[in-house]
Amino acid sequence: MQGCNRSQKIAICTVGLPARGKTYISRKLNRYFNWLGYKSRVFINGNYRREICGTECNSQFFDPHNETAQKARSDCAKMALQDLIQFLKNGGDVGILDGTNITRERRLQIESDLKQSFNGIQTLWIESICNDSKVIQNNIRLTKINNPDYCNVNSDEATIDFLNRIKMYEQIYETITDDENLSYIKTINVGADIIVHQVYGFLLSKIVSFIMNLHTYPRPIYLSRHGESQYNVDDRVGGDSDLSELGEMYADKLADFFFKEFPTKETKNEIIFFTSTMRRAIHTSDVVASKLDIQPLQLKTLDEINVGICDGMTYTEIAQKFPSDFQERKINKLGYRYPRGESYLDLISRIEPVIFEIERSRQPVMIIAHQAILRCLYAYFHQNEIPEVPTLDIPLHCVIKLTPAAYFCDEKRVLINPQTGEISIKEEYVQEFVRSKSKQKSFIDL
Amino acid sequence: MQGCNRSQKIAICTVGLPARGKTYISRKLNRYFNWLGYKSRVFINGNYRREICGTECNSQFFDPHNETAQKARSDCAKMALQDLIQFLKNGGDVGILDGTNITRERRLQIESDLKQSFNGIQTLWIESICNDSKVIQNNIRLTKINNPDYCNVNSDEATIDFLNRIKMYEQIYETITDDENLSYIKTINVGADIIVHQVYGFLLSKIVSFIMNLHTYPRPIYLSRHGESQYNVDDRVGGDSDLSELGEMYADKLADFFFKEFPTKETKNEIIFFTSTMRRAIHTSDVVASKLDIQPLQLKTLDEINVGICDGMTYTEIAQKFPSDFQERKINKLGYRYPRGESYLDLISRIEPVIFEIERSRQPVMIIAHQAILRCLYAYFHQNEIPEVPTLDIPLHCVIKLTPAAYFCDEKRVLINPQTGEISIKEEYVQEFVRSKSKQKSFIDL
Repeated sequence: MQGCNRSQKIAICTVGLPARGKTYISRKLNRYFNWLGYKSRVFINGNYRREICGTECNSQFFDPHNETAQKARSDCAKMALQDLIQFLKNGGDVGILDGTNITRERRLQIESDLKQSFNGIQTLWIESICNDSKVIQNNIRLTKINNPDYCNVNSDEATIDFLNRIKMYEQIYETITDDENLSYIKTINVGADIIVHQVYGFLLSKIVSFIMNLHTYPRPIYLSRHGESQYNVDDRVGGDSDLSELGEMYADKLADFFFKEFPTKETKNEIIFFTSTMRRAIHTSDVVASKLDIQPLQLKTLDEINVGICDGMTYTEIAQKFPSDFQERKINKLGYRYPRGESYLDLISRIEPVIFEIERSRQPVMIIAHQAILRCLYAYFHQNEIPEVPTLDIPLHCVIKLTPAAYFCDEKRVLINPQTGEISIKEEYVQEFVRSKSKQKSFIDL
Repeated sequence: MQGCNRSQKIAICTVGLPARGKTYISRKLNRYFNWLGYKSRVFINGNYRREICGTECNSQFFDPHNETAQKARSDCAKMALQDLIQFLKNGGDVGILDGTNITRERRLQIESDLKQSFNGIQTLWIESICNDSKVIQNNIRLTKINNPDYCNVNSDEATIDFLNRIKMYEQIYETITDDENLSYIKTINVGADIIVHQVYGFLLSKIVSFIMNLHTYPRPIYLSRHGESQYNVDDRVGGDSDLSELGEMYADKLADFFFKEFPTKETKNEIIFFTSTMRRAIHTSDVVASKLDIQPLQLKTLDEINVGICDGMTYTEIAQKFPSDFQERKINKLGYRYPRGESYLDLISRIEPVIFEIERSRQPVMIIAHQAILRCLYAYFHQNEIPEVPTLDIPLHCVIKLTPAAYFCDEKRVLINPQTGEISIKEEYVQEFVRSKSKQKSFIDL
């Protein structure tokens, strides 16, 4: 249902004490919206504060009785909100304000500023509540002590200071109440409880599902294309050809790889295994499934991009027969829709339910599918800009192992020689937080 | 994502005072699951009670101090639960227990019976709370006084008795609390507030979205195929041909029809207008849109069924070229997937987001699309058995106006002569409640 109500502006504002996963939720939602083709951006109060007041602020800076600091922080928050409003005015669809916003007064001010700036804007408040001290400690350890505020401080000191900072906020924390007349979602203890108040509309009700499925359990996601197909050999697009001889060899070696990756029967039985309904993918999956004694689920949703009337042609033939289409596709590979077929944007819309399914899984996920499909899935986790999607490198005979964590996504590429079974590993560690630290960005726009 | 976790058994149990929309929610969920291809059934405590104790029970029968009646009602509830368990054991996927279940004791008994009968069953409790007396009165007027319990009583008497019945329940009503350790959704005042506790999983998190989108505002849904296309004239399937001359005439007359149906600018601007991305549908929609001065939204999701390699053939040619496919399709038109194309089951899965979009809309919806697509949409609202879907009559040059209400769906078919503009109306009133009353069914299996 891409394309619904694009004229509707949406502002999402977080609420909650520090280390309650507000930034995680903001980033995830931002990724989801951008991936779906909405123009979305996160505005982080904390980054404005760091930019303006510097990073050397200890917990005293967050004391509600420290009036100078209070004033400075309030000014930063206002700047973040003003930038969000400007972003929506300049064509943005979704603006996400990532801040604590723990007082009723602050929330009502923000709501009123937004309503005054836009006729009919939808605002949604997301309050994250967590009273499980283990989750909080873990969150501090994983994300906060590597935070730019603590780059010159050792981790024990940083933790103590951060816990003090939380205490400062607790003094003035007011949870959202119904009489504030806000549309809100409260997520309590990482989605164990969800309270939804006055939330209507297609996109907003999807946010509820999305948030319910979020978690930060680290589990790997394996992506692989089918083995080389007869059409790959002939350089033809579309079709439903079976594996080439080399492709069959890859299937065997891939099965060996997964067999080692999941050494016990218990670990094998945990795997969530998806493939498409196309011959080359089913054949590859069946070899893996039979070696591991597990069952793949065939989803039509994972079938390769439909190339319409170009089905079965080589690119040279397409260029000859449909020169204007060939040109158009060269210029806009993302939005180009094959006549009677699909575009990459269509694909993203088609595979959206698979993203929900992967997000919610706390078990390892294995997907054997196709180049264009895997480009879309990979881009979601790897946070690529959407225009990059059609050119992402997803080679044959390679397993991509992704392990998403709170602020980054670990990546390992395993190239498998289909003839010898020789394995070469390309490790790539994507520490997003470091990236934004070095650039001192005041917003995330991934 | 059809086909996920089909081995997982799900039991959904309602909780709430009478006239809180429990049966409405049960029916809607049941329809949704069956339409998606799950085997789902509703077991209504009240129907068991009527079958066993008769329909002549006034409010005294519901007095918690009336021990004989209490025992009889409890036995009926047990029978409903046993039938639900049997249904799940015999291959059912989702069993819905539609009862009041307002005491903690009853709920814990049901939960324990279900857990004992199945390893790993997922149970979900849905409590409907409503303290808006207007909604309750309306609900009583629309559904309860036509209920078999009151077939020999006048409506004022019936209302009074029913309000007394509610009072009997109020004496012992205990809302679900967290210490009962149940997975639950509370919906308060028709979805204005939703509370979700310990609900995980793909299907269960979809139920939350689904319930959030439900409402009982009566608004029409207009379905029409495009005007006759060149391929319709040639009797060919697939393709992307434009309208025939007759098809163009239909587009004009259809525009006139809608222009009269929505006489003012305000009513026109309220219309939610969807069409597909295919030439014949866009052409028809553009004529309508330009006359009404509104904008259709083109959704690829609404494109006609993909007939794969049979694209552009006549049925005679398919029978000649692919005799075994032709035979297979004859036997199983629902599940038959055209080679490289789609089946009706694939279509249902593809258009599921459109159902969410229509369900949530409180404004009139207009859809100009294709035969197979409209068969699937129509079947959802008209409660057809899924195997009927591929043979439903959705003729050319006909507008189907559906107006869904709580327990039934009003239908009006407007045949438009594309040459003369002459209109003939076929009215068909589908009062489901009457249907189930005459059969005294103890479950709904629509």
